[in-house]
Amino acid sequence: MAETAALPPGSTIGILGGGQLGRMLALAAARLGLRCHIYEPGAAPPAGQVAAATTTAGYDDEAALAAFARSVDVVTYEFENVPAAVVDLLAPLVPVRPGRQALAVAQDRVAEKDFLAGIGLTVAPYAAVATADELAAAVDRVGLPAILKTRRLGYDGKGQVRMRTPGEAGAALAAMAGAPAVLEGFVTFEREISVIAARGRGGSVAAYDPGENVHRDGILDTTTVPAAIPAALAEEAKAMAGRILTALDYVGVIGVEMFVTGDGLVVNEIAPRVHNSGHWTQNACVIDQFEQHVRAVAGWPLGDPRRHSDAVMTNLIGDAAAGWAGVTADGLHLYGKAEARTGRKMGHINRIMPLGTLRD
Amino acid sequence: MAETAALPPGSTIGILGGGQLGRMLALAAARLGLRCHIYEPGAAPPAGQVAAATTTAGYDDEAALAAFARSVDVVTYEFENVPAAVVDLLAPLVPVRPGRQALAVAQDRVAEKDFLAGIGLTVAPYAAVATADELAAAVDRVGLPAILKTRRLGYDGKGQVRMRTPGEAGAALAAMAGAPAVLEGFVTFEREISVIAARGRGGSVAAYDPGENVHRDGILDTTTVPAAIPAALAEEAKAMAGRILTALDYVGVIGVEMFVTGDGLVVNEIAPRVHNSGHWTQNACVIDQFEQHVRAVAGWPLGDPRRHSDAVMTNLIGDAAAGWAGVTADGLHLYGKAEARTGRKMGHINRIMPLGTLRD
Repeated sequence: MAETAALPPGSTIGILGGGQLGRMLALAAARLGLRCHIYEPGAAPPAGQVAAATTTAGYDDEAALAAFARSVDVVTYEFENVPAAVVDLLAPLVPVRPGRQALAVAQDRVAEKDFLAGIGLTVAPYAAVATADELAAAVDRVGLPAILKTRRLGYDGKGQVRMRTPGEAGAALAAMAGAPAVLEGFVTFEREISVIAARGRGGSVAAYDPGENVHRDGILDTTTVPAAIPAALAEEAKAMAGRILTALDYVGVIGVEMFVTGDGLVVNEIAPRVHNSGHWTQNACVIDQFEQHVRAVAGWPLGDPRRHSDAVMTNLIGDAAAGWAGVTADGLHLYGKAEARTGRKMGHINRIMPLGTLRD
Repeated sequence: MAETAALPPGSTIGILGGGQLGRMLALAAARLGLRCHIYEPGAAPPAGQVAAATTTAGYDDEAALAAFARSVDVVTYEFENVPAAVVDLLAPLVPVRPGRQALAVAQDRVAEKDFLAGIGLTVAPYAAVATADELAAAVDRVGLPAILKTRRLGYDGKGQVRMRTPGEAGAALAAMAGAPAVLEGFVTFEREISVIAARGRGGSVAAYDPGENVHRDGILDTTTVPAAIPAALAEEAKAMAGRILTALDYVGVIGVEMFVTGDGLVVNEIAPRVHNSGHWTQNACVIDQFEQHVRAVAGWPLGDPRRHSDAVMTNLIGDAAAGWAGVTADGLHLYGKAEARTGRKMGHINRIMPLGTLRD
């Protein structure tokens, strides 16, 4: 489909996926006078509560997808596992941003690492694994301990098995349930950071300052900004995110997770969407990652990613959200989910402090 | 109706009025995991684009109002001219916050000034006017120049006539079209400020720093925070807003406009709702006036009204909103209105700067 000019206020952004990221995208779009139409297979999606329209239909419902495409001016998504067939169906009808290449790379851990290594970035040692023989060879190449992951559809620690000894190979491969896998070597790192960055229609890039992530039980717990790294390293991390965006001819916001090691920055993974580790931007920046993504996919000029504050974002997981009433000084964000299941992201809190409070 | 405890996330706030204030209330409620149901006579209200439910019906539709009351957990409003009959119908079914007393005072300029004077605050000289004789007597008492206003239903300079000489009395009274009026004396003032303040269910009060307002063509043009007034005067203004809230046994956010004169602060008018002169809080505070109002009416503890930045809010009136694409560093807020009529509020821009930038 031909590229269109900047969408005027009143235009409609279609969002595949109706979870909290879609919800916060819809809220940001509304601030800019744009409408949203949520496409989500599950009933009563959180994003539907704040969108002008919601389609409840499966990703295999071609008629619903086509009607959705015709009712919106651009399509974006809140999750990286959008089926390729969905993009094939939508793309002739309406612009889909970010595009197919970003999804292809992000959906396959081997394609992702091949891409990152191919543009000169450092990644952990890795090897594709489909059979027991390949796993044995991979262990030789990557070393142990290592982690065996499905190539596709993994997130928040799911579909992953740690291997300490060659004797664990059989069990590890069985845990993949026949799915193609990748063996990844461990990286000894001082800290994990992530860069949230955006690329606009015209190729301009804007990166937020790197945040430092701490996980608990395999799920992001806190992001602290600025990360405790030298300024030059922070600038290098932002530049690396920019290289990724440009190489993918990307439009929208991306999340890039990196390890800070004694030998420099190692890219862990990329997420072609707004990212949990960028939620701090809602209260520490005038233009947050959600508005930035909306601006990019709507063809607007990117916003200024500058921070006015230091920030600590804390996820509210499962029952932790029950403390909502006590939060009166910090930025409280709840996702409108009815049921607080264990491990479920229910909301987050952004605490901000004057610039320079956290690191001098 | 018996007072209820704090509403849990997932509860529904009913909002009378679907304009930009209702829209921004709905966006703030969504951040807190609360749903909104908009009640608005006009078709396709801006707030409806971001609310979980919308009722399109008149304020005289008793069946629709009753159904609305039953579908929500609390009712609030975005405009002060809610008909008394609507509150009479709703209040037995669901809490209405702020309550009837605030509306009664705010809907009648004479009742408002009587109330303010009655709690010891200074207001401009005024006299109720219904006839030519009363107008003549009012001119004697208040002096000229003065301004004749309808007692009810005026806003943004509508329903107001300036009188310079006694000979203008006939024309001024005719412009009231038979409506009861009030003659208000002019106040010589250095600047106009407004205080946005909130009172919670338990009686606690939280006031934002006063902003300084500049009007153009009778419509708010800019609000600058902090106002260029001594710190003690700013504190006095906040305390005055608190006295008003307490005297009204108020729950929610109020806007109090005041004149700064050589003799101290003169209260111009109060608005029992979120207020245009409080829009700066969206980008200069963690908890803005919209969230503060939602917190109050939902029975949550009030949020911290502290500013992290200085701010200048500029309204986008009529065609001025057409410059949307150029705004990339400031907080841009567009209201989702299709048609940019002259004098229509289409959006606003919040520019923030580090604390201390505007006044030392």
